[in-house]
Parts: sequence; structure tokens; C-alpha cells
Amino acid sequence: MRGNGVYPENSEKIPVIIDCDPGHDDAIALMLAFGCRRLDVLGITTVAGNTTGENAYRNALAILSLISADVSVARGADSPILRPLHTSRDVHGESGLDGLSVPPNAKGGDLSAVEFLSSTLRRSETKITLVPTGPLTNIAIAFLAFPDIKEKIERVVLMGGVAGQGNVTPSAEFNIFADPEAARVVFQSGVPITMIGLDATHKALVYPEEVEEIRKIGRVGALAAGLLDFYSLAYKARGFKGTPIHDALAVAAVFDEGVVKTEYARVDVEIRGEFTAGRTVVDFRGVTGKEPNAKVAVDVDRDRFLNLLMSAISVL
Amino acid sequence: MRGNGVYPENSEKIPVIIDCDPGHDDAIALMLAFGCRRLDVLGITTVAGNTTGENAYRNALAILSLISADVSVARGADSPILRPLHTSRDVHGESGLDGLSVPPNAKGGDLSAVEFLSSTLRRSETKITLVPTGPLTNIAIAFLAFPDIKEKIERVVLMGGVAGQGNVTPSAEFNIFADPEAARVVFQSGVPITMIGLDATHKALVYPEEVEEIRKIGRVGALAAGLLDFYSLAYKARGFKGTPIHDALAVAAVFDEGVVKTEYARVDVEIRGEFTAGRTVVDFRGVTGKEPNAKVAVDVDRDRFLNLLMSAISVL
Amino acid sequence: MRGNGVYPENSEKIPVIIDCDPGHDDAIALMLAFGCRRLDVLGITTVAGNTTGENAYRNALAILSLISADVSVARGADSPILRPLHTSRDVHGESGLDGLSVPPNAKGGDLSAVEFLSSTLRRSETKITLVPTGPLTNIAIAFLAFPDIKEKIERVVLMGGVAGQGNVTPSAEFNIFADPEAARVVFQSGVPITMIGLDATHKALVYPEEVEEIRKIGRVGALAAGLLDFYSLAYKARGFKGTPIHDALAVAAVFDEGVVKTEYARVDVEIRGEFTAGRTVVDFRGVTGKEPNAKVAVDVDRDRFLNLLMSAISVL
Amino acid sequence: MRGNGVYPENSEKIPVIIDCDPGHDDAIALMLAFGCRRLDVLGITTVAGNTTGENAYRNALAILSLISADVSVARGADSPILRPLHTSRDVHGESGLDGLSVPPNAKGGDLSAVEFLSSTLRRSETKITLVPTGPLTNIAIAFLAFPDIKEKIERVVLMGGVAGQGNVTPSAEFNIFADPEAARVVFQSGVPITMIGLDATHKALVYPEEVEEIRKIGRVGALAAGLLDFYSLAYKARGFKGTPIHDALAVAAVFDEGVVKTEYARVDVEIRGEFTAGRTVVDFRGVTGKEPNAKVAVDVDRDRFLNLLMSAISVL
Repeated sequence: MRGNGVYPENSEKIPVIIDCDPGHDDAIALMLAFGCRRLDVLGITTVAGNTTGENAYRNALAILSLISADVSVARGADSPILRPLHTSRDVHGESGLDGLSVPPNAKGGDLSAVEFLSSTLRRSETKITLVPTGPLTNIAIAFLAFPDIKEKIERVVLMGGVAGQGNVTPSAEFNIFADPEAARVVFQSGVPITMIGLDATHKALVYPEEVEEIRKIGRVGALAAGLLDFYSLAYKARGFKGTPIHDALAVAAVFDEGVVKTEYARVDVEIRGEFTAGRTVVDFRGVTGKEPNAKVAVDVDRDRFLNLLMSAISVL
Repeated sequence: MRGNGVYPENSEKIPVIIDCDPGHDDAIALMLAFGCRRLDVLGITTVAGNTTGENAYRNALAILSLISADVSVARGADSPILRPLHTSRDVHGESGLDGLSVPPNAKGGDLSAVEFLSSTLRRSETKITLVPTGPLTNIAIAFLAFPDIKEKIERVVLMGGVAGQGNVTPSAEFNIFADPEAARVVFQSGVPITMIGLDATHKALVYPEEVEEIRKIGRVGALAAGLLDFYSLAYKARGFKGTPIHDALAVAAVFDEGVVKTEYARVDVEIRGEFTAGRTVVDFRGVTGKEPNAKVAVDVDRDRFLNLLMSAISVL
Repeated sequence: MRGNGVYPENSEKIPVIIDCDPGHDDAIALMLAFGCRRLDVLGITTVAGNTTGENAYRNALAILSLISADVSVARGADSPILRPLHTSRDVHGESGLDGLSVPPNAKGGDLSAVEFLSSTLRRSETKITLVPTGPLTNIAIAFLAFPDIKEKIERVVLMGGVAGQGNVTPSAEFNIFADPEAARVVFQSGVPITMIGLDATHKALVYPEEVEEIRKIGRVGALAAGLLDFYSLAYKARGFKGTPIHDALAVAAVFDEGVVKTEYARVDVEIRGEFTAGRTVVDFRGVTGKEPNAKVAVDVDRDRFLNLLMSAISVL
Repeated sequence: MRGNGVYPENSEKIPVIIDCDPGHDDAIALMLAFGCRRLDVLGITTVAGNTTGENAYRNALAILSLISADVSVARGADSPILRPLHTSRDVHGESGLDGLSVPPNAKGGDLSAVEFLSSTLRRSETKITLVPTGPLTNIAIAFLAFPDIKEKIERVVLMGGVAGQGNVTPSAEFNIFADPEAARVVFQSGVPITMIGLDATHKALVYPEEVEEIRKIGRVGALAAGLLDFYSLAYKARGFKGTPIHDALAVAAVFDEGVVKTEYARVDVEIRGEFTAGRTVVDFRGVTGKEPNAKVAVDVDRDRFLNLLMSAISVL
């Protein structure tokens, strides 16, 4: 079955909570999460990052509605732990999901993201995988407020960080740069981490002809292609030949080990430097002598990733 | 009635939650809180600081038992938000309350400090004053996890910080130095703050002859004097003629406006400097152009403070 | 003779090099230096600070010409060691000496400030006192390039720093803030340092009625009063009742020990903090356990200072 | 002629000053510089780095004597601009050149490194290339003290920095880490820079069988091989299959453009971070929008490099 990336409905599923800031690639990530049939999505939490906390929440609801996913959505932090919010309007547009017509603003539900995370984890009898695709604000606050929930976490598979060249600065990737203190809390937490950073996601490109293929898949394919149309503009302007669908790669890495190649290494998060704030300092060579704390994605099987993505979209 | 610092039982009381890390001066602060008859102590939360989180919790229980105070105690953070814990064993001894015989270790209650804070504040129909006398870890985490509770806070009257000379470093006071990131969260929170720092507490001295007076007050007086006997050693070694009972001054400032003189100023918490981490940068002259965010205690009415303290002890 | 602050021409004089960034108070400082008859001014070096390097050099030449002082002037650094230059145009105006008509720009002499410092010190048979009244850029570079000259320095009596409230920020005084890395080099150099900071200079005020007295002293008095007229505006706007003549106090402290009260303490220069860059961290209480490295002025004999100043002006 | 890396004596030579901290690879670099026949070595300046300032000076003299190179040697800085010196004794041994018997200590000449640099550059009628293979302390101080000399510099071809993984920390290469403030001065100077960092030098490996080849070349070959024997130990222990002769690659890049591949990019030097101090932040993708200031070596033609090296050794 691995061949076409679609699993039968009855295969054992991995329980996950996705923490996101949609965002175009978050939207595609949600499509993959719900279409892959390998994940049991227990809920979605949203966080300010690509766009405001309000937009992120509304956009998540919109996407879930468009793909008919029935799942709890809990609204989280409106700003990083210590710093002011800087969204990436240049990439994702004013609404955070420009190119898609989204309904007017929606208020958050009864539970906040932190409350949803803590109550879901505490109640769960099996360990849960967290999949943050935005700044780690919600996850860090949940870890600080409810340290006991860390025992209920299978692992954190996060989109963020970079060992090579960053995108916001030469040193840093957006999600970690946005809330480096939160990232430090998470990387210091002792919870198993898989870091899907730019080293991998900048190779998880979708090319224009593939966008056209996606467009033909059906209603959700057209929707995805529409998102990619807008999202590609920013990358094209930056000289990319294809468009990296960062967040979807993190989702793929949760259920398909073959989609990325990782190295186990120590990762420390710089919170201070003048040119390096938000850098994930990855010690591939062991010069620090510290214990590794993360599996760092260093390469991607692009064909496999794309296959998973298209299969998922075709199912929705 | 103000004359002797004791109020009739039926006067209107100020609802408070005391967040502490006992610690000798925390212990005296608790005596003042329960003996002053002006505070409605809704609960005690404890935090790692002067001593470990475990010791602080046990010591709080011990003190409350010794003064027959029946109140909830909730155990909080075992370490600062981002930094490792450095206790002040040199001042407070191995147990955090050396000089006092405390019972063996106790496990925390059902609710954590953060949960107690959030549930008490959310449930409350009136605003509550928070009185942190240790690092601001619990308060900051509660603010991050439950931003809505800030509306239920009358003000935060905290022991910490300094505009003049620090005690851990020339720049910083212990509580802020211990968790500067937490302090920044609190000072940036928008909640009204009264900062009772070393500028005032280093003038809130108890002299040896006054310790003897306290010793004669009765059982609790003897207990307090015993604590002061040990606690004074560290200050004597640092060249102090008397012993500053820092934390008790914060408690006094909650119910007696005359006990300290304050200036309203902007306070920013330095989290980075090589020699200045943990400094509360107080802008008395308005050179930053920023809005003030704290009333900063700059002087103390020592006689009044001592009178309040002795009266409270005599009541217990 | 001390009584009126003027010494006979034949008394033994203290050899000094004044490193300045005129600047109104630098100008007054030069008047004091040449009028006090106690200093043998071997040369003047200039540095960017209050104003650009070009202006500072030209202004020094202008002032020296106006007081008929015949002395070498060497132009120094145009910018701090690592940081961009930020002048204090708000205090000293566009020319750095607004209120005074200065001649058009002048090119520097044959020797740079660093070359003048090194050659003069190396040639000298007696130790020389350096009196920097601007950022410490020139002094630091000279120490780095010619470490041997440190042995030829009697002491550095500098205007700069603060233990209490700063003027550029709540933490920092202008001269140290402008080039903290240079300040660190100097404070770490092992050379004896007397720090005349805001703790003293903000008490070395000249009041409006005293400016009028100065104006009546004669041609140079009128000149000085003219400078003070402009310079006072900025301080009046900041709520000062009088005008602190910072730099002149450093000059006075070179030859009259009674004009300031000092404490011997460790001073470290913060170069990193977010709110504290440029702070001189003074360890009055010895909490760092480090050896003292500077005499820090903590108080001033204002009458004595003013007497010295007026006497000097009357001589020119 | 390029084929064997040796040029006829009468070809036009590039005037250089080599600033080094020998150090085994510095020693090999000096062999290449004097044996390549393409460089006119005007002088050698030494600096503390791999070893103390005293050792570096003595070692340079020793190497030059062993290869019969008659050239001025000027001793420079004994420590970085702002930081304490940390040598790399673990790589280069106690003497800085362990494995080689060097004569007892020698005192420096009449001119310091900074004086030699300034006087040589000022006197020169043609532009000179600087080749620093240690921390940039001397170069930075010379630039600060004598800004005019920058106009006389053809370019700075330096061994130092890294865009990928560092060697002292995951972020930083030793030479830049040792004195990041000096590095910042140099990278901000406006002088053309070629940065030969670990991205290239970690591919400029000499393998054990090649060391044996070098050993057979003759007296200097045996000397070089002896140095490599000791130097290889540290790299072998770090898991390297061959030994990177960092400093020699910088020398080669001065006269042979084909030996490295470079990209022109903005390089900023981090001086503050907790995990990133000393990192050369290279903006390959132009995300900062700043003008490029350095040609950054990203690859090496190893065969060509080795050929140059062996040819040079065979000539000595």
C-alpha cells in the first residue's frame, strides 16, 4: 500500500495533535494529515506566527470546513512568550491565507490551546505525537504550565529550524526565529524531537507542472493548487524554481519514516545573538560533548513526499 | 487602630495569594500576612528560589502549621523558565530554613501552583492581589497559560528588583536574577505592579536588640527570633548592622500604603547582559519615553514596618 | 592659595593630555584646564562623540584659539570601535558647539590622536595623566596598538559612566554608551582610573544666577556664559534646575582632590544588554569578589568646583 | 608551468604580509609561501591564537630559520581585543608546534606587528595583500589605529570562519571564535576580503599516504611530514580520515585563483550569542539585503592544492 501513499481506513493510526498557524503550507499540511489515513488527528491548536492569532484560528476552521474534517480546534497564543509578534505577511498575505476566500472572523472555542493540549494529553491512555508547524509558543507554555504532560508525548515532530542557511535571516528559520525562547523550552524539555527544518523542506519542492497535476485531482486538488498559486509567488521572487511545502513535510514525517533522512544530534536554540537569534545550533560533529536531543532532517525523498501528498488530496 | 498595627477581625480584608520560596524572610512574611488581620489569604503557592521547589513547599507547610494557619498550599515550578536553578544556600542554608527544625519532605497537593492560581482567580468575583516573594516563575507561567486571569488581578506586590545596588551581582537582586525571563513576562503583562526591591528592603532592617524584643513576644515570637538568628548571620557577614526582612515588607505594603514610599516609573527587565542579567532597569527620569508600569518602592518607614510586624506576631 | 583656585605660575604642574569631543562642557573643561595654572597641557586629542570627528577637531581648535592656548591638537577616531556613531545633537546642536560661531572646517594635523598619544607618552620621562571627556575610543585604540604606553600613564581621569541613573538610557551615561567596547578596554587595562560619572557631575550644577556671574568675568567669561546659555536649554527641558558641566569636573578632579569624593570599587562595562549596554557596573559592596579597578566619584563639593571654574576663567 | 605549481624566479610576485600564530598548519603555510615563488613575502607578523604570543613569535622564527627564509618578523598581540586568550593546546601541543624541536624563547624585534604593518603599508608604492592565518587581532588593531593603511591593502585573504559546521563550537571556527570583535572590525572595514574557512579547508585534506610522499621530498619535506605526524593526531581523534592544512590553503588562494571556488556574499561576525559567538554569518541567499563584503571559499581543488604544496616544499 505504501506505493500510492494511501492506507486502508482500518490500519492502525498514530494519534496526533497538530499545532499550526495557517498559512498556506499549514493548510496543505492539514490536507495531508486528514487525507493520509495514517493519523488520528485528536485536535488542532492554533498559534500566532505566519499570521495573527485571530487569523490563524479562523483559517484553520476554514480549511477544516473545506476538507470536511470534523475535529476540535483550540485557539492559542496571540504572541510569542517574550517578544512582539512579527507575522510573515510577505509570504502568506494579509489574511495569512491570501488566495483563498475565508469566512469572517471567528471567536475561539471554550478551551484554549494550552488547556486542550493538557486535558487531551492527561486523559489519553496512549502517548500522543505533537506536530507543531508554527512557532512553538503553545507547546512551550503547555510544557511550563503542565510539566507532567511531557510523559504523555510520544514525540514532537516539528517544522522549524535549520542547520544550514535560514530564511528570515541567514541564521534562522521563521518558526524558531519568531519565538526562540519557546523553542528553547521545547528543545530542553527532554521530550523526543524530530526537527523538520529547512535543510529538508527546501528540498521538498513542488514544481509548477506538479501544481497543475494537483489542480486536476478534484475539488480539494483545485483548492490546494489555488493556495500554491499564491504561495509560490513569494518563493519565485526569492529565486526558487519550486515551492517548498514545509509544514506538510513534518506531517509526512510523522507516519512515513522514509520520507526524510535524519541525523541524531544536539540542538541548542540561540536566543541572544545579534545576527543569530533563533538559530538552531546543530552539533552534527559532537564538538559540544552534549547528548543529542533531536533527530534532525537532513534530506528528503521528494518523489515519495509528493506521492503521499497527491494521494492524500485525492482521498479528500 | 493603625497605631499598633493590629486591626479588628471584622475590618474589610484584602484578598491575596502569596507566592513564596521559604526562606527565612518568607517565613516572617507569612507570619505578618496571617497576623496582620488585614489580609484574606486565599492560598499559598510555592516556587523554587531560595531553596529547591521541594524544600520551599515543605517549608511553607511547616511554617503554616507552626502558626496554625489553615490555608491551601500549592506547589509550583521546580526551576526557572529557561535557566537552571541556583538557590541561595549561603543565606538560607541547606533546608532553605536552616535554624528551624522542619518535618520530612511532603508531596504536593492535587493542584499545582499554576492551576491553583488560575482556578482561584477565574472563580473569584473580586480582584485578588498577588504577593510573590520569590522568583516570578509561577506567576509568569500562569499569565502565559491563562492570559484571561490578568483581568482578575488587583495588583502584583512583589518582593524583587533594585534600582540601586544589587545583592547577587552589583546589578541584580536575587528573585529577579533567578528568573529574569519570568520577571520580564510579569513586568510586561500590563497588570499593576508594586515593586518592593532592595532600595526599600535594605532599609527595612531589624536590629539585634529588636530581635530580642521579638523573642519575648511569645511562642511565635521565639520562632521568628530563631529564624532571624540564623538569617542574620549571612547579613552580618556582608557587613550589615541589621537584617533586612525583604519579603515581609512586600506583605506590609499590600495593606499599609504608608510603610513604603514609591515612585511610578517604567521598569524593564534585562535578560541578556554579561554583568547585568536580572537587573530591573528603572527609568526614574523618563529618559526612555515609555509609559510607567510599576510603583517602585524607594524608601521605607522602618518604625511603622517593625510595629506592624511585632503586632502581627503578638496576635498569632 | 587653594582658596581662590588660582595657583602661581611657578607651582609644579601636572602633565596631562586631554582627549575631548567639544561639546559645550568640553569647551568649559578646556577653559578650566588652561586657566587653572595647575596643569601642563601637553596636547589635545579629539574624538567623535558629542559631535562628528570633524566637528570635534574644528571645535577644539576654535576654543583653543579663543582662549589663546597654544598647544598641539591631534584628530582621532571618527567612529567607535565596533558601533556606528550616534552624536548628541539634541544637547550640543548641529555643530557640536551651537551658540558659538566657529570657523569653517579644518583638516587634521600630521599626527593622529593615537600617534600623538603614543609618541608623547613614549618620549615622556615622567608619567602623564590622561583626561578623556568623550568616548574612550582613542584611548582604547592607543592601549591596544601600543600596550607599552600604559606604563607611562599616571592615571586616567575620565568623565563618563554612572552607578545610579544614566542619561542616554536609565542604565548608561553618554560617553560610555557611545563606545562601550572602548570603555571596557580602558577599564580592563590595569591603568589607575578615576571615574567622574553622573553620580558626581549631576551635582556639579551651575545655576542661572551663576551663569550671569560668569558672564561678567570678562571676554572669556562672556564666551563661557554664551556656551552655557545654549547648553542649559537641553537640561532645562529635562527638568534640571542647573546645568551640569560634566567635563570640567573631570579636569578639576585632576588637580584638586577635594573637589570630588570617591570610592574605590570594581567597575565592569556592560557591552551586551538589551537595556543596559554601556552601563558601568560599579560594585560598591564587593559582591563580585573582584579587585577594585577605579576610584568612582560619588559626590562633589559644588562650591569648590565653581570657585575653581570662575577663578580659571578670570585668568584667561 | 601551473602544472607543477612552481613558477620561475622571475615571474611577477604578489607582495604579501603573513600574520600567523604557528601552529602546525601555519608552519606548512609558511613553507608554501616561501616555496611557491609567486609571493613576495615582505614580512611576518605573529599573534597569540593557537599558542601564546611568545610561542607564536618564537615558532615563526624557528620555522623561517629551518627553511632559510630571510624576512622580518614582528611580534604582535598577546591576547584578543576584549577577551582572554584561549589557545588550542589540544591540537598544537604545549609549544604550539609540538613534534618540532624549537629553540628557547626569543624576544620580539624593534617593531611590533602593528607598527610593522602600518609602516610597511604606508611606505609601499603598490598595494599589499594581507594573509592572516590566526585570530585577526593584529589586523583589527592596525586598522583601528591607522585607518589610512586600508587604502594600501590589495585584499585580505584570511584563514578563518565557516558557513557550515564550526570546529570550536558547532557555530564557530577557532580563529574567529578567538577574537570575534577583531574579526568584526576586519569584516566591517571595507577592505576586500577572501575568507578561506572550514567550508573549504575541511576538504583540503592531506591523507596519510600523501604525508609519506611529502616525507620523501627532502629535508623540508621530512620537516613538514614531522609536523603533520603530530598535527594529524588531533584530527584522527576527531574522526577525520585526512588532515586539513587550513592555513596553507589561504596562502595558496593568494596566488592561485583556481585552488578554491568562492561565492561573493555578506559576512557578519556574531560577537554576542550564547551558542554562536564567533560565527561568521554568511548570507549566501541575500536575505539580509546587505551588500556582499567577502568572497567566501566554498570548495577546493584538492589535487591542485596538494600539487602546489608539494612543489613548494620540493623547492625549499
